[in-house]
Formats: sequence, C-alpha cells, structure tokens
Amino acid sequence: MTAVSQGVGAQVRLEDLPLRADLRGKSPYGAPQLDVPVRLNTNENPYPPPAALVADVTAAVAAAAADLHRYPDRDALALRADLAAYLTGRTGVALTAANMWAANGSNEVLQQILQTFGGPGRRAVGFEPSYSMHPIISSGTQTEWVPAPRDESFGIDVPAACALLASLGPDVTFLTSPNNPTGQSLHPDEVAALVEAAPGIVVVDEAYGEFSSHPSAIRLLDTHGDKLIVSRTMSKAFAFAGGRLGYLAAAPAVVDALQLVRLPYHLSVLSQAAARAALRHADATLASVALLAAERDRVMAALAAAGYAVVGSDANFVLFGRFADAPRAWRAFLDRGVLIRDVGISAHLRVTVGTPEENDAFLAAATALASTELETDR
Amino acid sequence: MTAVSQGVGAQVRLEDLPLRADLRGKSPYGAPQLDVPVRLNTNENPYPPPAALVADVTAAVAAAAADLHRYPDRDALALRADLAAYLTGRTGVALTAANMWAANGSNEVLQQILQTFGGPGRRAVGFEPSYSMHPIISSGTQTEWVPAPRDESFGIDVPAACALLASLGPDVTFLTSPNNPTGQSLHPDEVAALVEAAPGIVVVDEAYGEFSSHPSAIRLLDTHGDKLIVSRTMSKAFAFAGGRLGYLAAAPAVVDALQLVRLPYHLSVLSQAAARAALRHADATLASVALLAAERDRVMAALAAAGYAVVGSDANFVLFGRFADAPRAWRAFLDRGVLIRDVGISAHLRVTVGTPEENDAFLAAATALASTELETDR
Repeated sequence: MTAVSQGVGAQVRLEDLPLRADLRGKSPYGAPQLDVPVRLNTNENPYPPPAALVADVTAAVAAAAADLHRYPDRDALALRADLAAYLTGRTGVALTAANMWAANGSNEVLQQILQTFGGPGRRAVGFEPSYSMHPIISSGTQTEWVPAPRDESFGIDVPAACALLASLGPDVTFLTSPNNPTGQSLHPDEVAALVEAAPGIVVVDEAYGEFSSHPSAIRLLDTHGDKLIVSRTMSKAFAFAGGRLGYLAAAPAVVDALQLVRLPYHLSVLSQAAARAALRHADATLASVALLAAERDRVMAALAAAGYAVVGSDANFVLFGRFADAPRAWRAFLDRGVLIRDVGISAHLRVTVGTPEENDAFLAAATALASTELETDR
Repeated sequence: MTAVSQGVGAQVRLEDLPLRADLRGKSPYGAPQLDVPVRLNTNENPYPPPAALVADVTAAVAAAAADLHRYPDRDALALRADLAAYLTGRTGVALTAANMWAANGSNEVLQQILQTFGGPGRRAVGFEPSYSMHPIISSGTQTEWVPAPRDESFGIDVPAACALLASLGPDVTFLTSPNNPTGQSLHPDEVAALVEAAPGIVVVDEAYGEFSSHPSAIRLLDTHGDKLIVSRTMSKAFAFAGGRLGYLAAAPAVVDALQLVRLPYHLSVLSQAAARAALRHADATLASVALLAAERDRVMAALAAAGYAVVGSDANFVLFGRFADAPRAWRAFLDRGVLIRDVGISAHLRVTVGTPEENDAFLAAATALASTELETDR
C-alpha cells in the first residue's frame, strides 16, 4: 500500500510510539468478521428482529432524533426502569431502576466494575477457560488477573473453588452462568457459596442467562447485595447485538458507586430509545430461546453421533472436539462456508446454535470432516 | 424512601463497599439536568436537527435495525471513511479511514488514548482551567494528573508552557482549541511549538473546532504525526450531542495502537448508521455556526455593556464575571428560568450561546442581576 491510501502520517510506525509496556506486542481482541454463508462464531441469536420490533425501534429513533442536538438523559432512568421490569418479570425479584445500570455492551459494564472495585494493586480471579474479555478488561484497567482452574469437564468444583477464593483473596471474582465458551451453568446455591467464600465483589456474568436451565443469581441480591453483581446483555438471546446494550443488577449502593467512574452521557439517546423499544418486544424475541435450546440439543446429539466429543451446554453454543489440530479444523469448516470459533482451547472448537438450516449446514460439514479432523489416537 | 422503592439490597451502604481508595468521597461528574425554559449550560447547538436530517437518520436506523441481531462492524470502517472525508473537506488535509477513530463521545476516545499512552506510573498535563473531564479521565485510568497554569486572561504563554512541558515530562499533554470553559484558541504554529517541546503524546481537543477562527491542528499531522492526536466531537457544532459520537484524527499507527485497548464492538450499528446520516447533512447543520458566532459576539458586547467582565471567546460559550458569589449568581439565573454553568472558576460563570431568543432571555436576566450579583469592590 502507498502512503496515500494509508493516510497522512503513514511514515509513523507502531513500534516508535510510546505505548504502555504491557501493550507492546499484543493484538486487538476480536473474532474474524468474515462474509460467509453460515456465521456461527459469535453466539448471536440467528433470528432477525421481528418486523414489529424494527418498526417500533424506528419510530422510537425518529422521535428521539428530533432532539439529537441535546445530550441524552445521563442516568438513563427510563431505560433502567424498563430493564428492572423485564428482569422482575423473569425472576420474580422486585427490582427497580435503582438496582439497574446499563452501558454500551456488557464489556463497558464490566470495565466500569473493574474501574470501581479493581485497578492497580487489586486482583481479579476467573475460572478458565471462560469469557476471554474478563482478563482483557482486567488488563485494560490495570487489575492483576489470576486464572483459577475448571475441572476436566469444564465445571467448577465448588468446595475447592471456595477454598481457592479464600486463599487468593481477589477483589473481584468473575463467575459465569452459563460459562462461555464451555456451556455450564451454576445454580444460585453454588453462586451463594462462592460469594460467601470470596472476600470481595463477585460478578456473575449471565450473558447467556436466558438460555440457562438454572434460575438467575439475581435472587441472591436481597441477601448478598453487599458483594454480588449480576451482569447481563441484550446481545445474545435478545437478538440485539448490534444495539450494544449491556446491563447489570445490583444493590443500589453498587450502582451509585459505578457513577463515580462512568463517562458522562455514555449511552446515546438512540441506544436508550432503541433498547426500550426492543424490551417492549421481549416476548416475541425470546420466543426463539426454546427453539434454540431444542436445536442445541439436536446439534449436540448429531455431533456425538458423528464421533465428536461434546461438552454438555446450557447456552446457545456447543464446545466440541477432539480435533487433531483445532486451527486446521477451523479453516476446514470455513472452506465449507461455515464460520465457527477457535476459542484457544486445545483440540476444541465452538459453534453457535443457528437456525435449523444453518445447523444442518454445519452438521453436514462436521460429519464430512470427522474422518479427517478428529484425533485418531482416542 | 422505603426499601421497596429503592429496590432490592437497599440496606447496603456505599461506605460499606470495597471501592478503590481514590474514589471514596468523590461525586459523579455532570452538570445538573434540569427542565427549565432556557438551557444554556452544556454548550450544545441550540438548533434542532433539520427535518431532512431526522428523516435520513430514521431511514438509516430502519435499515440497520433489520440486522440488530448481528454485531456491528467492529472497526466502523464506513463511518471512519465518512469522518475522514468530512475533515478533509474542512482542512484540505488528505485524511483516510486509517487516520480516523471514533467512539461513544470524545470522552471515550480520550479514555482510550490514556489507556494506551497513560496509566499507572505515567503523567498527564493540561493547562487549567480547562475541560474538567481531562483530569477525571486521567484519574479513571490511573494516570497522574499535573495541572499547568494559564495566564491571567486564560491564554497560554507558549514559550513558558514549552519550558514547563520539557521540565514536567508528561506522557500525555492536553491542549484545547478553543479551550473550554474560557474560549481561547491556539494557532497551529503554537500547537507545533508545544508538540515539539512536549516529550510524549499531545492531544489537541478540538471539541469546539468548528467555531474557531484558527485552522485545525490536523494540518500538523503530516509533520508531527508521531506525537500528535486531534480529538473532535459531533456533540457541539454538529448538533449531535444525543448521538454520542466522538472521534480523532492521527497517524494510522496511533489508530492501530488504540485498537489494543478499545472494547470490541463499542460502537452500535445505530450509532454508526445515525452518525453517517448526520454527516451527509453537515452543510445544513453547520450553517448555524456563523449565526452562533455572531450571536456570541452580540452576547459578549451586551454583557460588557451591562458591566460584566467578559473573557473573549472563540467558541459557542462565554465566560463572564466578576460575581461576588458565583454559586449564588448561578442560582439567581436559574430562578429566572435560565440554566447556565458554574464551572468552578472563582467569580465566573459560563453561558452557552443559544438561539437569539434564548440569548435575549439570558441577557435580560444578566442585565437585571448585574446590580445585585457583580462584585462591588472592582
């Protein structure tokens, strides 16, 4: 490429810039965004939003756009009230706007949590393999990251984990239910035991909560609100990944604390209006959850029948193996028009549950590839 | 309030939470959001977006909403190309998408800059009084904040400032042109001298750049791109405060560096689509800039005629005084239905330039209050 196509200042090299030492040599996070027929790599809901939702979002944005010259409600109170009503309906816990906080994706929510309760000289712990943004956001907020282990089937041995948390003394502990990329949920009783054992704040990341067979940890807020934060997102079951709306439920004092680090006016008037419109269609959107759960079970059974080792999932994705060479297998799926995810777990790949047609295409590829890509010594 | 209206966990107190020590006792940033007839406190463009812009934003969002279940373009390449074209048109500098970065408001852009080039063990310098988010975002990223002085008329003595920067050795220096809340611009020649004197990265915050009589520092990127970043926003002249779109121009390597700390998918598909639509109407929106500049000059003259000391402004706001008691005077304006800003500068208040009618209402209040609120010993 020439300097012109690169833009002004193209002669400046990355290695000449005064980056923080801990950033040198790192690569940006992110799955490849490739335009292939079957995209099953980022755990989105495969079903487009219903026409009525699109119409409602559009009308809400049209109304909000007339006031675009004004800053949005900095506290997003109407949206937070709607989020509280949604979660109250799902959990039976009487949440209010004071319990809720929202940001541009749950990543920003998690970053605010770590800016408040983590940071230099503080430590975060998570049970790996898990959501890879937890250590990345810890690093970005200068919080020491200490990985804790999962057992051989990717579950958490709760008594052992309690003992480990007590000894590690984290300021922030990440739990996940269901866990991405492996799929296991924690029961609220297990979460309660872990919260009691952990000395600091415990974040239960329920990004895939709507898919889980277990109740939400939100039911623990009444008794464990001094330590517990439950984060959620509209990106997954809610089919709103493009809208970027993450949120959390916590004791009101925790929400107050987060105000000290949030950037003012972080949520645009469009994000607030569109998310509120989407929440009005929650029943229609979430109607896909049962279908996706059934498809997930079908995918797991078909993978097992084709000879794969399948990790039991409580979410909208499935971790499977064992591949002789996971990166090579990932490429082989891509060559067949199916984009799945290499999450860095040896011998495994992760597939998002898509529409029945997408799953059929994936399973056809998986069946065809089993003979060449599976480990042969097992 | 009862525990019920406060939500679950209302018994938890802020002082019982394990906040970082540096956050204890702090208050959230933000001007009061009050519903009063004349709001001249947050430097927004007072003119609502034209009907054609609202229609175009709505159509763009309607198209984007059909794909809300998918993550947005993580790199926002189309938006960045449009921003490059806009700035190239204004400055004559041949920018490309590789020169541009965007986020949810310039606050997020600045936070990403400090996460990349600041942080623990590093130092940021700004010339105060200036935009109060610069020290707050420095604190939020654990960057040491060192304030440098302005002269008595709130300008920068460039030779003295160059010497100070060389001796302080900041990793990140904030310049502002025009400076909020005092209104002075820096000429690119002055910026060049300061960039050459500063040892680290220099951020020129041009949030109010469209109002300035001086050219943008973007013309320096070709020669000073190894150190210079120019940040901008669509919140002010662009009448897009509700859309939350901040951006920057820099050497491509700087933009590459920021990818290491940005949260993936930080910009929603709605933000990207709406900002692109608004950029298509730049000419119509920015037609208000000349009118606002003329109104600014009228407001400055009328304030001086009423006996106020007026700080000469190159932006869409005016700092004026001298008040016997600025907080009391702020309240007196509010009691007359005019919301202006107490920016914490002794004896001064800041007023945003509004529509002619809003400015008339403000000036009527200012004239009436001069006899009771102005310092009498000067």
